[in-house]
Amino acid sequence: MKKGSKYGTHRVIQPKGALPQPAAKISNNMDISDNEILIDVEFLNIDSASFTQLKEEAKGDIKKVEKRIMDIVQERGKMQNPVTGSGGMLIGNIEKIGDALKDKIDLKIGDKIATLVSLSLTPLRIDKIKSIQPEIDRVEIEGKAILFESGIYVKLPEDVEHTLALAALDVAGAPAQIKRLVKEGDSVLILGATGKSGLMCSYMAKKMVGKKGLVIGQARNESRAEFLRSTNFCHKIIIGDVLNPIDILEKTLNANNGQEVDISINCLSIPNTEMASILPVRDGGVVYFFSMATSFTKAALGAEGVGKDVTMIIGNGYAKNHAQITLDLVKESGILRKIFKERFLR
Amino acid sequence: MKKGSKYGTHRVIQPKGALPQPAAKISNNMDISDNEILIDVEFLNIDSASFTQLKEEAKGDIKKVEKRIMDIVQERGKMQNPVTGSGGMLIGNIEKIGDALKDKIDLKIGDKIATLVSLSLTPLRIDKIKSIQPEIDRVEIEGKAILFESGIYVKLPEDVEHTLALAALDVAGAPAQIKRLVKEGDSVLILGATGKSGLMCSYMAKKMVGKKGLVIGQARNESRAEFLRSTNFCHKIIIGDVLNPIDILEKTLNANNGQEVDISINCLSIPNTEMASILPVRDGGVVYFFSMATSFTKAALGAEGVGKDVTMIIGNGYAKNHAQITLDLVKESGILRKIFKERFLR
Repeated sequence: MKKGSKYGTHRVIQPKGALPQPAAKISNNMDISDNEILIDVEFLNIDSASFTQLKEEAKGDIKKVEKRIMDIVQERGKMQNPVTGSGGMLIGNIEKIGDALKDKIDLKIGDKIATLVSLSLTPLRIDKIKSIQPEIDRVEIEGKAILFESGIYVKLPEDVEHTLALAALDVAGAPAQIKRLVKEGDSVLILGATGKSGLMCSYMAKKMVGKKGLVIGQARNESRAEFLRSTNFCHKIIIGDVLNPIDILEKTLNANNGQEVDISINCLSIPNTEMASILPVRDGGVVYFFSMATSFTKAALGAEGVGKDVTMIIGNGYAKNHAQITLDLVKESGILRKIFKERFLR
Repeated sequence: MKKGSKYGTHRVIQPKGALPQPAAKISNNMDISDNEILIDVEFLNIDSASFTQLKEEAKGDIKKVEKRIMDIVQERGKMQNPVTGSGGMLIGNIEKIGDALKDKIDLKIGDKIATLVSLSLTPLRIDKIKSIQPEIDRVEIEGKAILFESGIYVKLPEDVEHTLALAALDVAGAPAQIKRLVKEGDSVLILGATGKSGLMCSYMAKKMVGKKGLVIGQARNESRAEFLRSTNFCHKIIIGDVLNPIDILEKTLNANNGQEVDISINCLSIPNTEMASILPVRDGGVVYFFSMATSFTKAALGAEGVGKDVTMIIGNGYAKNHAQITLDLVKESGILRKIFKERFLR
């Protein structure tokens, strides 16, 4: 077996010297190096921003989405949407483990895992698309994938249904980051609180702020607000238009006794919501962007333009123990389990 | 006096509900609201990208540039280049202060200031263009401008030449953020250490890390490295290719006793340098992106892709007291003043 790079750079075809994620094309040859793992893939869970873009491009025609996915993987050696840049994750069974890893990891042949690194850097070969479930961004395939030595994964737990675990793990970074960031007594605004990461962030934020804190959840209309109310994950709920930052600012102030909040968390998946995230936060506060639709320059120039001295953080999908933290949340909250089963199973 | 919005939304003519910067047209009526400041303008310093575009459009004919500037301000109520979207800054004297601000700010009638918010959101009326100095993107005018309550500015110091102060203030956010972020004993990697913001960040970082810390500056070739060595702003210098993250990682480890650094600071102005910023940083460390060429998704997915638990921050051009912190640096360091005079005057 040949020796591979920890980060998978040995598989980059173009441009040379790049890492697999920014690379335009990587090798999806399924002969593994000594520090790679071969996975027999069952499902791809396409990143939500990516899947939305694919559906729009195909004007809702699922056959066209299917063809586009095949084409992208053919071209790039990985399922990275060229427009959004994003990927997703996969589920599969361990088929082969490189010699250099065999004694270093807790996996054995046949284990069922979910990869927690993005599909945007994962060597993938699709032999056949068996079905697409567009409502949950899921693609059932026959195919193989490679996990690098630096790649993170989780063994799917036995006491939580796999589909449920996956739905939660897809946004595992979010609650883990919130757990670290939000302190007792904080006031927190969650934009897009009714979506998957929004719900998990709301639940975690409410735990962290304790009795003296305040979690404000934003919903886009009354029916979403009604749903959010039923979860009891937020102390207060505002209905507002995230494309109108002044609207969000005023409603947030109104919900927080006229004060700006300590932290805002953007869990939306639509562009041009940077200012709605920045304006409601006090000087010295934190804006956390989980949305993959965030524009770096709009955030940077936007904060400067309104003279806001806030710390803006790029959401990192990985944090130490993030998979465990997320699975614990799902085990802990019956409401979360129920919602995930009803809405987000994948 | 009428009451205005802190962010100037009361002056937006089109589209309604927008903030002044993204707006197509704002009001440059010079009757001020109670929380606005009227400025008698002397100079516009047009953003470099904008001025380059104007010159190219006019095929170098300065009379045509002059007319185009007049037309843009006439159309939009602000000097925002419709092609580049960018503005610039201005210098002028305080003419009038709204009643609601009089006792809240440190300005008085007649003070000379530079605005630190972009011209792309500043209501401006030009009565006459007196001269244009194309080599320094400067336009001398007769005219008036408005500063909103959220608008930031700096009183120009008497003991630093205005041109020098302006050149430094252009990147004022960077050293102020570094002052806050970097702690004693930290190891810090500065990518693009030989540029304007890179030099200021290196100088500030070396001050902050103290005797036990380490500042590593990256230069792209030997002649830039030689220049950087002559400043003595970094403890160590690496020559490396920022488009090759593995190269930067290895050279950084080599300069830091085989250890990853606590903090990396991206002061480059070229795309695809996210991974070169992320890889050399230890888990739990910080990556600060000042580069406007940063891609949000490349950073977010890149860190996840290599399983790096780092905090990634979007560089904010504004921080409390940033102008003063920056001017203090320029006053303090003769080397910095000399470099600025030789290389960056505007």
